[in-house]
Amino acid sequence: MLDPNANSLGSWREGSIKSAIFEFVRAVVTEGSSDYVAPADRVATFDNDGTLWVESPLYVEGYFLLDRVAELVRIDPALAKEPALAAVLARDMAALHRLGKRGIIELVMRTHTGMTTDEFDRIAHGWFERAIHPRWRRPFRECVYQPMLELIACLESHGFSVYMVTGGGADFARVISESAYGISRAHVIGSRSALSLLRRDGLIALSKLPELVSFDDRDEKPRNIHAHIGRRPILAFGNSDGDLAMLEYATGAAGRRAAFLLHHDDAERESAYDGDFQLSPLIRGLEEAKARSWNIVSMKRDFARVFSWE
Amino acid sequence: MLDPNANSLGSWREGSIKSAIFEFVRAVVTEGSSDYVAPADRVATFDNDGTLWVESPLYVEGYFLLDRVAELVRIDPALAKEPALAAVLARDMAALHRLGKRGIIELVMRTHTGMTTDEFDRIAHGWFERAIHPRWRRPFRECVYQPMLELIACLESHGFSVYMVTGGGADFARVISESAYGISRAHVIGSRSALSLLRRDGLIALSKLPELVSFDDRDEKPRNIHAHIGRRPILAFGNSDGDLAMLEYATGAAGRRAAFLLHHDDAERESAYDGDFQLSPLIRGLEEAKARSWNIVSMKRDFARVFSWE
Repeated sequence: MLDPNANSLGSWREGSIKSAIFEFVRAVVTEGSSDYVAPADRVATFDNDGTLWVESPLYVEGYFLLDRVAELVRIDPALAKEPALAAVLARDMAALHRLGKRGIIELVMRTHTGMTTDEFDRIAHGWFERAIHPRWRRPFRECVYQPMLELIACLESHGFSVYMVTGGGADFARVISESAYGISRAHVIGSRSALSLLRRDGLIALSKLPELVSFDDRDEKPRNIHAHIGRRPILAFGNSDGDLAMLEYATGAAGRRAAFLLHHDDAERESAYDGDFQLSPLIRGLEEAKARSWNIVSMKRDFARVFSWE
Repeated sequence: MLDPNANSLGSWREGSIKSAIFEFVRAVVTEGSSDYVAPADRVATFDNDGTLWVESPLYVEGYFLLDRVAELVRIDPALAKEPALAAVLARDMAALHRLGKRGIIELVMRTHTGMTTDEFDRIAHGWFERAIHPRWRRPFRECVYQPMLELIACLESHGFSVYMVTGGGADFARVISESAYGISRAHVIGSRSALSLLRRDGLIALSKLPELVSFDDRDEKPRNIHAHIGRRPILAFGNSDGDLAMLEYATGAAGRRAAFLLHHDDAERESAYDGDFQLSPLIRGLEEAKARSWNIVSMKRDFARVFSWE
């Protein structure tokens, strides 16, 4: 049974959002309640970029891409002539934003091809070990929102299965999902590249191909949630229009359900943007939230603290 | 710590296979052992048809298809003119076997189109409630191999995450995975049809399209395992050449690993077939097993009992 006094959401300010979370969890875990949901059906899905960790001015995976392209160009300087790669090399944020999320993910897939999934895992793991976010001057894996970690832990302690559903590459997010969020690699749903089987000397590996086979954004999120989990979530949390279909799916059926959108409105402690963030804007979501009684979480108002290091 | 005296594999006969299972589990769960595997990495993948439940003379999903097509033809008799559907209607086993597993799965997808995943779930659930296996005269969900249920339970009690990786439809297998095997719907990986989002009156559902987007057989099994789990299994269990790539993947890397193939060699208690089973033959597997030291499980020799009702 949920004990709000346990203060498991210590980094959330008292207010309507924190109350709504506690009220929702209490309702679905209380046996005999008309809103009771059996543990197996307590599925919660969270977007990653901008929901669990920072995404502005550039996705974490975008910074990973910058370093990767610089390395590739050191090996083969001719690559610098390609316009998209030249923009990456020049760290031209306007050009990068014009690529959109899909364009960035496609470049990540394209620049990590011909290697096995194990090799990619090692490369990304090594990068997370040493790379520092240029704005926060902290390792990227620390640039996660403390209130969201507490919410995930609160849900899991109440029998929820928590999944990450990211537009970013699943292989990339899995490198840090367990250490940064406590979310199992198997609970990461994300964009995927094609794979081929590489057999050598009785061993077998999966080789990453440049082709993006699933861009896990917008309508693809519910499709991938069904393919992966086989159950409709009862809670979904996102921060951009790319998450709307997931929120619609979580709330668009009978029974007690809840949806949340994190609004980045805290220029002082983090960032303030919504419709103007070209990579992944939040425009329709703010209207839909009103029409559908979804919860708009204001970072400024509802987060008592943003990062763990504060 | 594993206690072989607990006799958790009571339906397995004493012998080299039962010993190999106990020895493998003991090795990977013993801290300090050179073969120790952390719980998060204890991933085991099981084929379904012919591995966990019966598949001869026809897949369970094939019988489901027979009933479905009969129903569709009652509504639209013109359908009976289509050769593939006519073969299904006539219960022409030779013609059905010639369709192969893929052909049968494609027909299941084609004959369950224009309905939502929730509707399919209800249809399949209702079918399992009333349908009886014509050979065993038992509900289909009881036609599972008791020793395999015990093996799954044994692995789970030792910290393994157990997944089903079936060439059959994931939506179909999920209907009984929890009640028949204790395998969560989220741990079912299988063949999938395309989905479209159906929005109506603020609700949203996933509509099944006739197109097969992933036939989860042969090389597609390791690809789907990676997409879904993000970890390489350390144990894989199958029964046909369609499972070879999964067994190669589970065993084709460093560390302690194990692979098993169930050989249907028990005409008296179940069935005796391998290379002659046209739907899903076992030919190369028997050779590879010798070359790679995989375990061939003889139903006749190693199963003390086949079904729970014996």
